[in-house]
Amino acid sequence: MPNMTLRTPVVWSDACLLHDPKGEVWVGVPIEGTEIAARAEVIRAAMEAAGAPVTTATPHDDTVLDAVHDRGLTRWLSTSLADWERDGFPTNPGQDRVVPYVFPTQAMLGGMPLRSPVAVHGRAGQYGYDTMTLVGPGTWQAARGAVDAALTAVDLVASGDHAVAYALCRPPGHHVTVDGYGGSCYLNNAAVAAQALRGKGHERVAVIDIDAHHGNGTQMIFYGRSDVFYGSVHVDPAAGWFPHYVGHADETGRDGGVGANHNVPLAEGTADDRWLEGVASLAEDVRRHGATALVVSLGVDAAINDPESPLQITDDGYRAAGEQLAALGLPTVAVQEGGYHLPSLGGLVVATITGLETRERRHGQ
Amino acid sequence: MPNMTLRTPVVWSDACLLHDPKGEVWVGVPIEGTEIAARAEVIRAAMEAAGAPVTTATPHDDTVLDAVHDRGLTRWLSTSLADWERDGFPTNPGQDRVVPYVFPTQAMLGGMPLRSPVAVHGRAGQYGYDTMTLVGPGTWQAARGAVDAALTAVDLVASGDHAVAYALCRPPGHHVTVDGYGGSCYLNNAAVAAQALRGKGHERVAVIDIDAHHGNGTQMIFYGRSDVFYGSVHVDPAAGWFPHYVGHADETGRDGGVGANHNVPLAEGTADDRWLEGVASLAEDVRRHGATALVVSLGVDAAINDPESPLQITDDGYRAAGEQLAALGLPTVAVQEGGYHLPSLGGLVVATITGLETRERRHGQ
Repeated sequence: MPNMTLRTPVVWSDACLLHDPKGEVWVGVPIEGTEIAARAEVIRAAMEAAGAPVTTATPHDDTVLDAVHDRGLTRWLSTSLADWERDGFPTNPGQDRVVPYVFPTQAMLGGMPLRSPVAVHGRAGQYGYDTMTLVGPGTWQAARGAVDAALTAVDLVASGDHAVAYALCRPPGHHVTVDGYGGSCYLNNAAVAAQALRGKGHERVAVIDIDAHHGNGTQMIFYGRSDVFYGSVHVDPAAGWFPHYVGHADETGRDGGVGANHNVPLAEGTADDRWLEGVASLAEDVRRHGATALVVSLGVDAAINDPESPLQITDDGYRAAGEQLAALGLPTVAVQEGGYHLPSLGGLVVATITGLETRERRHGQ
Repeated sequence: MPNMTLRTPVVWSDACLLHDPKGEVWVGVPIEGTEIAARAEVIRAAMEAAGAPVTTATPHDDTVLDAVHDRGLTRWLSTSLADWERDGFPTNPGQDRVVPYVFPTQAMLGGMPLRSPVAVHGRAGQYGYDTMTLVGPGTWQAARGAVDAALTAVDLVASGDHAVAYALCRPPGHHVTVDGYGGSCYLNNAAVAAQALRGKGHERVAVIDIDAHHGNGTQMIFYGRSDVFYGSVHVDPAAGWFPHYVGHADETGRDGGVGANHNVPLAEGTADDRWLEGVASLAEDVRRHGATALVVSLGVDAAINDPESPLQITDDGYRAAGEQLAALGLPTVAVQEGGYHLPSLGGLVVATITGLETRERRHGQ
């Protein structure tokens, strides 16, 4: 780690520790899950050790959230567990959590219009699109707290006090579409940040997603819009990785958003050089797009030791990615996404933020 | 039971016993499941005890199957377990079975075209729309055997030798759409029978579904067609029952099929009288439709003791339903669907077939 002190504020919400759905269900098998509260704690500890100031997320109303997500989704996330418990759904002992079991796919509906089921266990599959992303006690509070963290980071940057702010969001968010949650994500913190930056007067905003997985939710939210560019480097879904159905190179936007979406899917085993080429090409896109503010979906699960992806990125690679994005010279909000290898998580985030601070250090110190 | 001997042939496939996915996953909880091989055995025993002749299903090629289902679905069902095992997917010891975990719902895709994932665990959710309907060793053989049973029953009726034939299909089929399986069903035996009857020269065919649950698959397959009428009495999905998303009264068909679909959703606790009114109204529809052949989706899970539905139908009710449908005077293929209360299953099927034989007994003996 460079011999310096980080100055990027870490926006923290205590609520992030409340989300604990006690595991996941993966291909029918209950497993422990890797998106756990300890992730946030080790990242915070590493950032503090690197000297970064920690600031508490401030409550924000739902204005921006409602501009990004369907109200049906937020209502579902905030009320479904109570309905689940009221209706006596299981429920292994001590495991009150909402898990869908039937899903209104195209194959199921065959063109019929989607009608929202009355029963809570039927309705679950309308919003939740996988069996990994369980709603338990504290899930809503944590997800909403992560949104507040993202919005607070936007405030810090928009005020001009900071060139970079980092929202330590947990749970992560980039898999959440307008009205669907999955991939251990519940509310799309990065999309909220981008939308908030739009509201702060930035006519064009870019989201660069360096998480190991494609941010299908963020892509979807802005897919028809030209004002928010979305670019992602990620392991190729066609190599067999989540989100499986979305994240291909030829997905470039629709309607007015054509050209404002760029996916760089990478082969399993991709290491720093090729990954950084991808990041560089996205940075070039941001320049072309004319964005005046940047959101970084900062997943560090592309790292060499991460259990959830086959990419092979080093700390140096993450730092270099941060430097490339810093070179854009834009007010930047970094939002935590994935990253699951507890021993290296903190160092990877510190490395990336160190890179993102390059410009600030160069010009400001 | 009336003092008589059943003459309706029972078409049997030994393969029906091979399907044993060792449970289901319901709202995230692995459970034992009720769609078990013993169901077929107790029904067969009861039919034999009632004097019904048992005949073995004969192999049929895929012509009719391909007219009903997408080839992607049949390929998936016949090959996915091998892919699953090859790729090392989990699983609990001794439980090799395919279970989806991510589903391309509208909320997930947000209007993106559906692209078939390369990875077997990703692709699973393209075809399987719930977590209850697992593909294990023997699943394909059993499902394909059930199709042969349905087609053999059609042959027996089409030959003129029998007014009624009964295919003891297991697994059941009415939840299978053109390209989606679920609800413990894999191939739509009733739809195959109806399509086969069309091929035997019946210009108009009707499917009457008296299973406790809506046959969303059969509805979907014929939804845009006027040549096959689909009618169903079932517990109201809006009361919180599978298939949750489909089976409402206002679903009446699309395009050329408008008017050839009739759902009679019933309140929880509905007993014989109201249920039989529903069956009578569907019989009237069949007359109006001008069908010259009938398929009965014979689920007996509407029975009073069945664990899978809240309807309260008695043996007498099922016999009366059989009589109402017999009064149509049409060549009739009955296809087994649900029914999960082992002690009463056999008697319920015997009662229904007894009713269906009414006309034959009256005129033929």
